[in-house]
Amino acid sequence: MKYHGLILALGIVATTGLAWQQGALAQGERPAPAPNGIEIPQGYKDWRVIAPSHRTDNNSLRVILGNDIAIKAARAGKTNPWPDGASLAKLVWKDRIDENWEDATVPGKFIHAEFMLKDKVKYAKTGGWGYARWLGKDQKPYGDDADFAEECVACHTPVKSRDYVFTTPAPLP
Amino acid sequence: MKYHGLILALGIVATTGLAWQQGALAQGERPAPAPNGIEIPQGYKDWRVIAPSHRTDNNSLRVILGNDIAIKAARAGKTNPWPDGASLAKLVWKDRIDENWEDATVPGKFIHAEFMLKDKVKYAKTGGWGYARWLGKDQKPYGDDADFAEECVACHTPVKSRDYVFTTPAPLP
Repeated sequence: MKYHGLILALGIVATTGLAWQQGALAQGERPAPAPNGIEIPQGYKDWRVIAPSHRTDNNSLRVILGNDIAIKAARAGKTNPWPDGASLAKLVWKDRIDENWEDATVPGKFIHAEFMLKDKVKYAKTGGWGYARWLGKDQKPYGDDADFAEECVACHTPVKSRDYVFTTPAPLP
Repeated sequence: MKYHGLILALGIVATTGLAWQQGALAQGERPAPAPNGIEIPQGYKDWRVIAPSHRTDNNSLRVILGNDIAIKAARAGKTNPWPDGASLAKLVWKDRIDENWEDATVPGKFIHAEFMLKDKVKYAKTGGWGYARWLGKDQKPYGDDADFAEECVACHTPVKSRDYVFTTPAPLP
């Protein structure tokens, strides 16, 4: 019985270890908020497409999604400034060469989901946008303290004249 | 008055010509069906993301979207075969270098929207999928006659063991 108990215990440790390594959140489990207090938006994976992009400097494929307010603004061409309540999500994957089409780059490992939430009063200190990012499939919040978003603002400041947003909504019929 | 009439007439010709050149369908106007009778799915621009991709052989960026049945199957990992009723849309743009991030490829001109509609009985002759494509912003149906889809089937046959679908749903948290 001792051996059975040991095997069972090892089994539990191995299984727990595996779950930790895979880092998957349990079904319905919500990631911790970002250090600036921003919660991950519910249902962001169901938001609609604004544009794809491919960065060859860090070999990553991206899709930029928008909530209903952002999609309405994007389709109406009213994105400078984006309206309060607009939320943008960027899903980022490592490049992978498609096994059946060698000239196609497709999504590999999931890197992170990052967000820009527009509220010019609430987020006045960071240019009217609230920034947050969650890393990997386990969605670990990015940043050591509440000031982490200064890094986001610095990177986005070159496009201040576009309301801090790099993405141009993709043309659609 | 003659001159005013002429200017007005030229104005109308110029405006009509411009609208034709831009090829935009009027608000709410539906594109003609494909030569095999398939109608463009309503609301496909609101479907959710399955994956982005970037083809460097023809310099185009893509987003593959799915209707509710396809998204449910993709998220459950049940895509071989895809269930009847699953519809996939692929939106394709010409590559463009982002003016504010030179190592980013972003959507340029809209090339086409193409579709795979799963119904193993209705579309038995083309491997259980109905194929259709609409070109450009004016959404001109692709193909000269009802047999145009043979070209689609030929291209997709190398991935017959994946139910004729190249796209692997992108991993998500």
